This record gives sequence, structure tokens and C-alpha cells, in this order.
Amino acid sequence: MNKVIYLRNRPAGMPSLSDFELKEEEKPKAEDGEILIKTEYLSVDPYLRGRMRNVESYIEPFKVNEPLESGIIGKVITSKNINFKEGDYVNGILKWKEYQVSSGAGLNKVDKNIAPLSSFLGVLGLTGITAYLGLDKIGKLKVGETLLVSGAAGAVGSIVGQIGKIKGCRVVGIAGSDEKIHKLKADFNFDAGINYKTSSDIEDDVKKACPNGVDVYFDNVGGEILDAALASINKFGRVINCGAISLYNATDVPTGPRHEGTLIKKSVLMQGFTVRDYVKDFGPAMKQLGAWLHEGKLQYEETVVAGFDNTPQAFLDLFKGKNKGKMIVKA
Amino acid sequence: MNKVIYLRNRPAGMPSLSDFELKEEEKPKAEDGEILIKTEYLSVDPYLRGRMRNVESYIEPFKVNEPLESGIIGKVITSKNINFKEGDYVNGILKWKEYQVSSGAGLNKVDKNIAPLSSFLGVLGLTGITAYLGLDKIGKLKVGETLLVSGAAGAVGSIVGQIGKIKGCRVVGIAGSDEKIHKLKADFNFDAGINYKTSSDIEDDVKKACPNGVDVYFDNVGGEILDAALASINKFGRVINCGAISLYNATDVPTGPRHEGTLIKKSVLMQGFTVRDYVKDFGPAMKQLGAWLHEGKLQYEETVVAGFDNTPQAFLDLFKGKNKGKMIVKA
Repeated sequence: MNKVIYLRNRPAGMPSLSDFELKEEEKPKAEDGEILIKTEYLSVDPYLRGRMRNVESYIEPFKVNEPLESGIIGKVITSKNINFKEGDYVNGILKWKEYQVSSGAGLNKVDKNIAPLSSFLGVLGLTGITAYLGLDKIGKLKVGETLLVSGAAGAVGSIVGQIGKIKGCRVVGIAGSDEKIHKLKADFNFDAGINYKTSSDIEDDVKKACPNGVDVYFDNVGGEILDAALASINKFGRVINCGAISLYNATDVPTGPRHEGTLIKKSVLMQGFTVRDYVKDFGPAMKQLGAWLHEGKLQYEETVVAGFDNTPQAFLDLFKGKNKGKMIVKA
Repeated sequence: MNKVIYLRNRPAGMPSLSDFELKEEEKPKAEDGEILIKTEYLSVDPYLRGRMRNVESYIEPFKVNEPLESGIIGKVITSKNINFKEGDYVNGILKWKEYQVSSGAGLNKVDKNIAPLSSFLGVLGLTGITAYLGLDKIGKLKVGETLLVSGAAGAVGSIVGQIGKIKGCRVVGIAGSDEKIHKLKADFNFDAGINYKTSSDIEDDVKKACPNGVDVYFDNVGGEILDAALASINKFGRVINCGAISLYNATDVPTGPRHEGTLIKKSVLMQGFTVRDYVKDFGPAMKQLGAWLHEGKLQYEETVVAGFDNTPQAFLDLFKGKNKGKMIVKA
């Protein structure tokens, strides 16, 4: 049999397990030109919450009563496609199914001798590429500048910070536990960290941790932490709006202080960043990330949850900050 | 005697005449290397409100009990500086004084045979340059795109819209009276206009006037009109945050809907624009504006208030929308 995870309802506010449904179905068979793929690793990511809403966005919404999908590393079990052979590993956006068939379109082969398979969902996958290209296309870091990162212990944030250090910047991270803050400094080379959960005045703590102000803010969370970053932003500052996890489960329109005055006074650039806009730059980005990885300049962390059935719970745990680094399910 | 206008108090909220003080002083004399200038035209601009606050900004705050200053066209009455002769007209940031002496530093000569003197404070001055460079550096208009402009009947907005038409765009303006809306279409070649004062749903009116969405929004006002523009913004939209007159007199921190979600979903760029950041580009901008003016492609409007003493009132009237086009005082 074949396990498949469906979206049962569009979540209202914070998603719960009852929004998902695990079904057992027939295992499919590869027809001519197709491959049968067994899911090995699944990526769960905050942006998937956006796809659960029925609103226009940069990517099509999920449909109710259809299987979900995300970045997946799979193993080719049967191949009736000359481009793939049995035992190959592939990477792509695939359904949340234990087994599925594919024409191979949109799939890339990955070599587990280059790096562990799961890293192709993280540091060498969209996560690492997001960090790299967000900084490259919008951040445009200069030596000696101050880079502030939120969600700093997360998959993207921890790589953003390390790239900042490679580029010669002062790097300050914001995360949600003292353990994470310790890790930022001990493992990821950050200069300073702020625990937003225990901070009594996040604006003031940002100011203190960034005595020369903030030149580039890589935002994974939005909301009040964005406000705090803008309160310390320097003239010609750049804000990479990469994520807004603090707002993803909001049911009303979130409000906050207006920022247009700050943008004008400080000639600040804020720009929404979606890695899919830069597909043509993926190759060079992966090459650079791979080189840094082999030179020992990039560390990465994964939280690996065992069991295909636990994929929805792993997704929910993202919003509780239970992951350290990239959240991955080992099927 | 010599009339001089001082800042008496920092205004709280909307400024009033009592925040200014007209004093009579000795008329100064030019010493060696100096010129004596008689003020001919004064520019009053919304951004001056920001200089009345005692806060860090892109330009030094005015000091209480000192004369104000702004863009001024003056006539050289006496010259003891070999670079100027009596009868020359000069343009620069000068004090609100009927007569003043200057070393000539920072002053440019203007030729009243090229264009009327007052136009060097408007379409050929910082106003026109702001419109031109805001669009050039951030807007990056493409043929066939939709350009939305707020403060559209104002000094900057009316030029922004006309440049949009020169660039082959659909241009929609937002202004505060039916007379202004009529003028946008009749005199400035706009495709459509929205009267925000009589609109019952500005978001819906923007949507209707921009059936293909908004590609570039040139924002002179901030606040709820910015929100409405972002509700219709297209993928890869650009917002030029040039002014926020709706917020300038606020005494509390203005709040509104958070925009980071929209920026991410639509890969939108928002950037604060201050013309002083681009001084090296002023020359080419003025040249292009002058060429369009002579080709009859640019119309401009001025509201000229007579009498040096009326400068504070002219400034206050900006916030009531009493100006059409550039607000200027003829001393």
C-alpha cells in the first residue's frame, strides 16, 4: 500500500493535525517514459502555510482534498525513462506520497557522494540558495557593515549569518531561545544574538547589539521584529523581506506602525524576495555554497523527524520554533 | 529695513502662523568676496515640515529662533565677488530674508531667457528633478505599464504623470478635488484620476482605474492611499516613497496594515527617495527636463502667492491642498 497526505481543510489561523488526512492507496506503477520514486526525505517549510490559503500568491494554492507537496528527495525504484536508472536519487517538488510516478520533468539528480542527501533540501537546496541570492540580489553586503537576521537559528537564517561573516560583516541574529542564541555564536560564527522571547524591549536590544546601526536586515519573521530592525536602520539600509512567519497564521489583517516615513528619511530599500524569481541564478549560487561547504566555511544544522506519517506534525512544529536549522522528515 | 522670518516654535501637529515670527532687522552689506542678494521667489515645500522637528533626518533640523530657509531665486544687488555681477539671478538654498549676503557658495546662476525665473524652483528645479530621478532610479518604467501617482496635481506629481505618458505608460492620478482631477486629464495628459476626498472606497477606485494592476506607484502622501496602491500592486511592482504628507503632522506614531506579506507575495520593491542622494545626476536630469519643456511635452503649473510676509501662510496652505502645482512666493 501507499501512504498519501491530503489537505483536508484550509486552516483557520494556526493549522492543526485535523487539517491533514493520511490515506492509504494503491501503489502506482511506472508506465513508459515514467519513473517510480520512493520518497526518502521531505522538506517542510513555513511558506507552505501560504499555499494553504485560497488567495493569489507567487505560487498556486493547494487544493482541499488533494495531496500536499514540497521539496522531496526520492529514490528511483523503477525506471521506464532513459534519463534515469534504478537507484538514482532525484530532487524536486513532489507530492506527499510514499511512492509516486513522474515523467521526470522538473527533477534534478543528486549525488550522495557530494554531500548527504538531506543537504540538497537545505544548505545546497532552496534554503541555502534563498540565503545566498537574497543577500546577493538585495542585501549587497559591504565589508564592515552590520547584518541583522531574524529566524537566525532557522534553516535560512543560519546560512544568511554565516555568509555575512564570510563577507566581512558584523552579524547579529534574533532567535527564540537561549540555546539557539548560544548556538548562533558557538556554531555559526555570529557576533551577537538576541532572544526575542525573553527580551523586554526588542527595539532597544537591537539598538544595543548593533551600535553602528543596521545596514542590512534579512527578515524571516515580519511584525514587531521588523519594526525593531527599522528603528535602527541606517541611511541607505536594505531590508530583504524573505519571510513573515509571525503573520502567517493571522486571521485579521495585521497592523503596525507605518514605515513609509522611515523609508524616506533613511533612503531605505525594502524588497520582497522569492527565490523562484531567480531560477537562472540557481546554478552559480549552488556552486558557491558547495565550495564554501567543502572549505569548511559553512556549517548547517538539521532537525530530522522520523516517519512519513509525522510530516504534518513536523510542519506544525515550525510555528513553535521546535526546529533547529532545516526541518526535514525522513520517510 | 530687512524682513526676516524666524521659526518661533517647533509646531505640535499641524503648524500654525504662531509658529513663525516676522522680524525687521538691519539690511546687511556685502563685504569683500560677498554678494548682496534680494529675494525674488521663495519655494515652500512639504518636506520643510520635517525640518521643523528636532529629529535626525536626511537634512539638519531648523533651529528655534533662527531664520528658516528653502529654495530661493534671488537677484544680485551688489557684488564684491568676481564670479557674480549686479543683475545676475541666482538659485540656491537661502534664508527667508528679503536681503542677505552670501559668499556665493552653493549658488547657481539662472538665465531668465531660458525659462521664467520661478520655473527654476519647480519644473527645472528640485521639483522636476525629483520627479525625473525618482522614476529613473526606482520606478524604471516600461512601455505599457501602469503608473499610479498620488499628490498628482501637486508640483512633483504633475510632472511624474507627464513623464509617465512620455514613457508610454497608462497614468492614473490621485488628487483631492474634482477640479484637480479635471486638470490632470485636460492639462497633464493623465489617463484617469481619482478624487480621494469624495471616494467612498479608495482601494476599490484604484482597482477600477488600474484594470491591469499597478506596476509603479509614485507615493507623495503615504498612509491609506499607499495601502490602496499596494492592494492593486502587480508582481515585481515598484513603489517610490517620495513623500508622506498625510503623516507629516501626526503627533502619534501612525499605524496601518502591515505590508511585508504583500512585498513578499508580489516581489515588490519599496524604496525611500530623497533627491539629495543623487546630486551627481542633477545635470542630466535638468537637461532632459529642459528639452521636454522646449519640445512642449511638459506642462507645469504654479500657484504664486504675492508678498514675502505671506511665506508662512503659503507653507501652511500646502497641507490644505490649496496649491495647484508648485507653490511659490513672489517676494
